[in-house]
Amino acid sequence: GYTTDPEKLYYTTKIFEILVLLLGLTIILRNVFSNLSRKNKRIIFELVVAIFLLVSILIRWNLFGEYPDSVLLTSKKYILTNIFVTLIFIQELGKFSLLVNKLKLSPSLIFILSFSILTIIGTALLYLPRSTTAGISLIDAFFTATSAVCVTGLIVLDTSTAFTPFGQVVIMTLFQIGGLGMMTFTTFFGFFFRGSLSLENSLFLRDYINEKNVGAISSTLIKIVIFTVLVEFFAALLIYVFTEDSLFASAGQKLFFSAFHAISAFCNAGFSTLSSGLYEPGFRYLYHMHLVVAVTIVLGGIGFPVFINYYNYLVRVLTGAVRFVFIGEKYRHTPRVSNINTRLVMYTSTALMLVGFATYWYFEQDFTLKGLSYYGKFVTSVFGAVTPRTAGFNSVDMTALSVPTILIYLILMWIGASPGSTGGGIKTSTFAVALLNTWSVVTGRRRMEIFGRQISAESNRKAFAVIALSFFTIGLGVFLVTIYNPELALIDVAFEIFSAYSTVGLSLGITAQLSTASKLVVTVVMFFGRVGTLTILVAISRKIKERRYKYPEETIYIT
Amino acid sequence: GYTTDPEKLYYTTKIFEILVLLLGLTIILRNVFSNLSRKNKRIIFELVVAIFLLVSILIRWNLFGEYPDSVLLTSKKYILTNIFVTLIFIQELGKFSLLVNKLKLSPSLIFILSFSILTIIGTALLYLPRSTTAGISLIDAFFTATSAVCVTGLIVLDTSTAFTPFGQVVIMTLFQIGGLGMMTFTTFFGFFFRGSLSLENSLFLRDYINEKNVGAISSTLIKIVIFTVLVEFFAALLIYVFTEDSLFASAGQKLFFSAFHAISAFCNAGFSTLSSGLYEPGFRYLYHMHLVVAVTIVLGGIGFPVFINYYNYLVRVLTGAVRFVFIGEKYRHTPRVSNINTRLVMYTSTALMLVGFATYWYFEQDFTLKGLSYYGKFVTSVFGAVTPRTAGFNSVDMTALSVPTILIYLILMWIGASPGSTGGGIKTSTFAVALLNTWSVVTGRRRMEIFGRQISAESNRKAFAVIALSFFTIGLGVFLVTIYNPELALIDVAFEIFSAYSTVGLSLGITAQLSTASKLVVTVVMFFGRVGTLTILVAISRKIKERRYKYPEETIYIT
Ligand SMILES: [K+]
Ligand SMILES: [K+]
Repeated sequence: GYTTDPEKLYYTTKIFEILVLLLGLTIILRNVFSNLSRKNKRIIFELVVAIFLLVSILIRWNLFGEYPDSVLLTSKKYILTNIFVTLIFIQELGKFSLLVNKLKLSPSLIFILSFSILTIIGTALLYLPRSTTAGISLIDAFFTATSAVCVTGLIVLDTSTAFTPFGQVVIMTLFQIGGLGMMTFTTFFGFFFRGSLSLENSLFLRDYINEKNVGAISSTLIKIVIFTVLVEFFAALLIYVFTEDSLFASAGQKLFFSAFHAISAFCNAGFSTLSSGLYEPGFRYLYHMHLVVAVTIVLGGIGFPVFINYYNYLVRVLTGAVRFVFIGEKYRHTPRVSNINTRLVMYTSTALMLVGFATYWYFEQDFTLKGLSYYGKFVTSVFGAVTPRTAGFNSVDMTALSVPTILIYLILMWIGASPGSTGGGIKTSTFAVALLNTWSVVTGRRRMEIFGRQISAESNRKAFAVIALSFFTIGLGVFLVTIYNPELALIDVAFEIFSAYSTVGLSLGITAQLSTASKLVVTVVMFFGRVGTLTILVAISRKIKERRYKYPEETIYIT
Repeated sequence: GYTTDPEKLYYTTKIFEILVLLLGLTIILRNVFSNLSRKNKRIIFELVVAIFLLVSILIRWNLFGEYPDSVLLTSKKYILTNIFVTLIFIQELGKFSLLVNKLKLSPSLIFILSFSILTIIGTALLYLPRSTTAGISLIDAFFTATSAVCVTGLIVLDTSTAFTPFGQVVIMTLFQIGGLGMMTFTTFFGFFFRGSLSLENSLFLRDYINEKNVGAISSTLIKIVIFTVLVEFFAALLIYVFTEDSLFASAGQKLFFSAFHAISAFCNAGFSTLSSGLYEPGFRYLYHMHLVVAVTIVLGGIGFPVFINYYNYLVRVLTGAVRFVFIGEKYRHTPRVSNINTRLVMYTSTALMLVGFATYWYFEQDFTLKGLSYYGKFVTSVFGAVTPRTAGFNSVDMTALSVPTILIYLILMWIGASPGSTGGGIKTSTFAVALLNTWSVVTGRRRMEIFGRQISAESNRKAFAVIALSFFTIGLGVFLVTIYNPELALIDVAFEIFSAYSTVGLSLGITAQLSTASKLVVTVVMFFGRVGTLTILVAISRKIKERRYKYPEETIYIT
């Protein structure tokens, strides 16, 4: 069902129609006035699309005679218009990444702007009457769009009942783009449509995907997108297989369910089309499916740099093996399995996963694990260890968790996933550097060393700043929500803000009760958490040139 | 009144008598067998004391005929014995500092051991039947002794009703020694009795009081003790003046009250002989007295290095002025007012005080400030800004605080006082370094600079480690207490543990409800907070010699 407010429906529909009209006109005008030598085959396609858009709007405005409204609303024509608009949107998005690179903005500012723009687009789309079943307030649309773009998963409206299939597709698109990183996504499409990557784009992506070799960036980008699509495809396939048919009205619905949850899991988004998440009756005991979701979450949270590292290693080993077998060439040297970043991330992630599993298993025996089968306990504990970092799905009733588990969740959420991944938090690498620094100070060393490498002082300073800013943002968030919603318990508010900052999306059930001011606070915290408080501050702060001379060094009296 | 358990009274009295007997014998034997050339005038004094102790015990054991028990218990002789025992104890304490220096232990280990030994002595003294009015369990004696030695001020028994005047004197002595630092205290007495300072003692104190010039240590030590005594004396005097006579049964009681609160304030101990602290009816509106206590707290929390810095500056300026006036000597150069440590501490402390005052003023208008006079609101806000850092006195009903104030208190408590002071927390300097580091990372600088000085990387690493360890300790403390006392609200537990770690002593009223296991946890947290988690880890960890060669440097991918 659509919104019940006919006036709102009327105006938004009119605005949409005018926008489509303008879009069609713009495309035609641009192609007419553009440099002839640069015209290519695509212009014909674009002209066809533009004319189609114009005609469809003119039909709707009764220029070719009158049709009953009901025919137009449900007609195939309207769906076709949507498809064309979407295609053009994606194509323009590809050009967008080129455009912003021409603006010569700093990478961090681009990063922030891209997320902001995506959020605004998302808010507008979710505010459309056709997105919701019973209307939505602007703040709720903004909150939901931010939550989706930032792959947080906190919800003020039930995704399953408050949003139409169209709204759900919008949400899914938002967290897919947001999870992959707006710029990764748009650059890929720019690359896809143009066939090459601009230097600016390369330089920006170098920071974002942590690829030092500029020449390898385009291939790295393709690897990332293919990796994403492959994992999401197989995850959706397995979710489809392990979910019972009887739970859905049609195969199409089941397919959509599988795709939605596969993407949501890989992007660590935590959105679900079920009211109670995976705890929904019927889905609660589908442990095979839970395990698929858990593995997908881990793959999304491990970070693209780690994936690229292992991929390159595998390719090298395979190439070597093939050469050895077919050409008889001797294996020259064993390549390093993984670089220091990968190792640090893998060790820390594994340790956190084990700690999460063991503590969940221990503290939840009399709570959420009570009465489950042995396999059920195992899968639920695995899921419980994985979801706070920072997937945000729930396979149990969150309000039934024991207090120790909630405290461990706070820590796991705060640490979060690995850098360059779809997850949030301060990141495993930051946490690892904090531990290494403490260890080296305790053992009285002046250098931080691990795996035969020395960690740079710069990494240490940055990790310290990230941790300090995380506490600042979280503290301020808790403080403000406490002021705007004084009736809420501190632990619930703290959990909510940690969840928002680390883009987890788990909640002890207060999200819908937040006042508008609190919702805005949580929105800002989600945004800061996803983009990074440090990134934002670096982007807006004036760079200070360093002096040529040094001041004398002083040691501060600590403790 | 004394304990009601006659059996316990009998045994502890017997043990005390045997100890006094052994002490007397030891002194005599030592003087007889000691090197004749090293004998000095004090031997005669010691022999007299020893013989007196022996005789007094033999009298009590009826070797010279029988006396009624009641005569002996209340006789002047018994009080004299106590005074002599105390004198000998202090003298031996002075020798103790020399002894531990001969053991060639690391300074941090000495620091830890001295606090441990003082806690054990305190526990034994508070466990004596004469310390309490109605008996005390061993865990409560241990808790109270640790709280006093660590100048925390958390209490499981009401200091005013559960402890006898003797017990209160024990507590006061413990926090006086603990606040000044056990080694400062004992070294001073060793120095006082011997007239000189050993090199080991000097080297240890150099770290502790942050005095770089080894030659200046003995004079610095004297300055510290004189500063302490002077501030405490004038604070007691003013408290005496500003408190009404009618509140006390006698002038002696009023004097004891004044001394107790002056020492407690300067040492940031937070112990009070009033059941409700300064919120006690009758004392509640003595704002002049509150202000005196607040200023004393600030003087104690500012740190001895800062005091020494200003003192030396003042002396130099005065000397210069005197020379100029009387000799006509031209003032050669203006000495630096204060070093970087002092400045950092002063700026941070002032900022925190202002923030504390403003937020208390704003958020408490409808809570603890309601209905107070303008002056009352001012003083209560000043007090409210000062007490969480980390004095622990309360001039209001703590359970009536607004939630925003409680959250701000958590932060102020965590930051705490300045290094080298009687207060706790991570310290203002650590907090300042964290801010400076964040600022320099945000503005893209590779160096941390302030006041024309560069902060060493070592300071930064240490600050990072201190902050990381503080969260680790606090987190573990909250976690364990939550497990052992699942019925308590998280905010109360968090406040309690922050209070314990930063040796604040404020509580939302749950201390007495803690289970024995939780009390032990809080005790350990208090100890870690006072001695410093980093200090403890450095002391117990094996030092790792650094390699001659360096590993290649790597940058970790942060964010
Ligand atoms: K999430
Ligand atoms: K205290």
